[in-house]
Amino acid sequence: MDSKKIILTGDRPTGPLHIGHYVGSLKNRVALQHTYQQYVMIADVQALTDNAENPDKVRNNIEQVALDYLAVGIDPTLTTIFIQSCIPEIAELTIFYLNLVTVARLQRNPTVKDEIQQKGFGASIPAGFLCYPVSQAADITAFQANLVPVGQDQVPVIEQTIEIVRTFNRLYGNTLIEPQALVPQDAGRLPGIDGKAKMGKSLGNAIYLSDDADTVTKKIMSMYTDPGHIRVQDPGRIEGNMVFTYLDVFDPDKQKVAELKAHYQRGGLGDITVKRYLNDIMQVVLQPIRDRRAQYASSKGDVLALLKKGTHEARQKASLTMDAVRRAMKISYF
Amino acid sequence: MDSKKIILTGDRPTGPLHIGHYVGSLKNRVALQHTYQQYVMIADVQALTDNAENPDKVRNNIEQVALDYLAVGIDPTLTTIFIQSCIPEIAELTIFYLNLVTVARLQRNPTVKDEIQQKGFGASIPAGFLCYPVSQAADITAFQANLVPVGQDQVPVIEQTIEIVRTFNRLYGNTLIEPQALVPQDAGRLPGIDGKAKMGKSLGNAIYLSDDADTVTKKIMSMYTDPGHIRVQDPGRIEGNMVFTYLDVFDPDKQKVAELKAHYQRGGLGDITVKRYLNDIMQVVLQPIRDRRAQYASSKGDVLALLKKGTHEARQKASLTMDAVRRAMKISYF
Repeated sequence: MDSKKIILTGDRPTGPLHIGHYVGSLKNRVALQHTYQQYVMIADVQALTDNAENPDKVRNNIEQVALDYLAVGIDPTLTTIFIQSCIPEIAELTIFYLNLVTVARLQRNPTVKDEIQQKGFGASIPAGFLCYPVSQAADITAFQANLVPVGQDQVPVIEQTIEIVRTFNRLYGNTLIEPQALVPQDAGRLPGIDGKAKMGKSLGNAIYLSDDADTVTKKIMSMYTDPGHIRVQDPGRIEGNMVFTYLDVFDPDKQKVAELKAHYQRGGLGDITVKRYLNDIMQVVLQPIRDRRAQYASSKGDVLALLKKGTHEARQKASLTMDAVRRAMKISYF
Repeated sequence: MDSKKIILTGDRPTGPLHIGHYVGSLKNRVALQHTYQQYVMIADVQALTDNAENPDKVRNNIEQVALDYLAVGIDPTLTTIFIQSCIPEIAELTIFYLNLVTVARLQRNPTVKDEIQQKGFGASIPAGFLCYPVSQAADITAFQANLVPVGQDQVPVIEQTIEIVRTFNRLYGNTLIEPQALVPQDAGRLPGIDGKAKMGKSLGNAIYLSDDADTVTKKIMSMYTDPGHIRVQDPGRIEGNMVFTYLDVFDPDKQKVAELKAHYQRGGLGDITVKRYLNDIMQVVLQPIRDRRAQYASSKGDVLALLKKGTHEARQKASLTMDAVRRAMKISYF
């Protein structure tokens, strides 16, 4: 167990997880948990950095996100699922690391710069937001993670972590492990059912892992296709057509998809027919997820108990790191 | 005990404490401990904000500063002496408070602005330094302190704390106590023996509480007086003359001091005579401090044991605050 490489990953509990999360990261975690020692963090502290005024939203999504994890097949006997705010060592490390990074360096971080623009903070950037790459360095190093699965846009945050690790090790002796970013090969993000690049709650264009079968069918039947494809016999476009985008991602029968595309392009294949076909594919993907969710949800106390157990395990690991950090910094007094 | 108002105060363990600390704050703490529930923090985390590259210096001064406290008469049965880095709740509160303050607000803080100039950080301001008023808000509120003794120059930091408390209480319900700055009436800072406004280790111009009697005598005999006062019979200046500045502070016999001043000004009172007189006064002040130090120092293990006990008590108080904060922020899960 201890000789396995360590992965840290997680999500902000600000809403239910959707099939974009599933193909982008969750599916990968289910695979990785067999080869790696995997820590999955429900990042409530990070969620509060821009939801300070809305703690109920964060609170209400903790168990939901945990259920999403369990539903997709993240196995709590293989993966340690934990709640960030219950690991004080992360806060302690953040405070120490803040001394190793300049304000100017944080202001230059491309990820932070982009997100400050996106979130429209203007001149009112919360200090916690500017400092969040340092908090993430603490998240990662608290577990001495070797690998951190991230999107391309988050690579600068891992670079910041590596800088902090190097500075710490130079000042206090070799203590922290340098992590590596694990950027998925197939980095394309699944668009929403309306064809918009970003899938999200506020846009109302996501298929959630917690949606029931009828809701999924309804969403698929309303999918954005080719607005010029009026009559069945007309040729249709498959570029930007969500039905085919989703089939490319979810249908394992690539030959069948190629045939459908050709048929749609030359005319004679109706939107309803192809949507029904996609619906069947999606239900096959989602049904086992729904089944596992129902099992776990029927005993809601168990989810909290699992989180408590995972959090306890995570804290043991983080406190080992903190002990080493204290010794290195010579603040291990008693 | 619990109905007493709470005071938080402390020092950065970056060097031995001197008589400037004694008249400026330590003497006051000895008096306050009878009326208030007093917490005295050895601020090692804060000391590391600008000594990140020099952890040995911080480490080596922990017990020395504790000994200085005990030596002046801070009574560990009345006052809780503790080490900052052993209270993770302070780090946790800091992280939450960072979301309630903007970067622009921190950059406008007059104390921070002044100190950034003094320390010559230029463009390389450590993020931890910019954020230190937020850490101090965490120090203060972790103990729900009502009063914080500070110099006039630190008042903006208390104002920042009050702002954070108000924002927190508005967002999450009434949880934190608003502290008040306790600015000493007699705010004059004791100059160094060379007449320089600031007393400090690097300047070599301080009388330390841990100096032995001979060292104190030697320092007093080398004090800056009136460089124009060459012959005993000449008139001398008392303005800027450290012997009289110190007599004003330490000699309880104000009439005697007035007589000496008059004599010195009209001529006929030699520097050596008046320095010997000051030396007698200073030894009376310092001898009981040295005696208590010797008692505590003879059992060095005891000092660490006292710190451990104080830190344990402090942590109990801080964790009560943290529990209340967690409940208010709805992150009290288990």
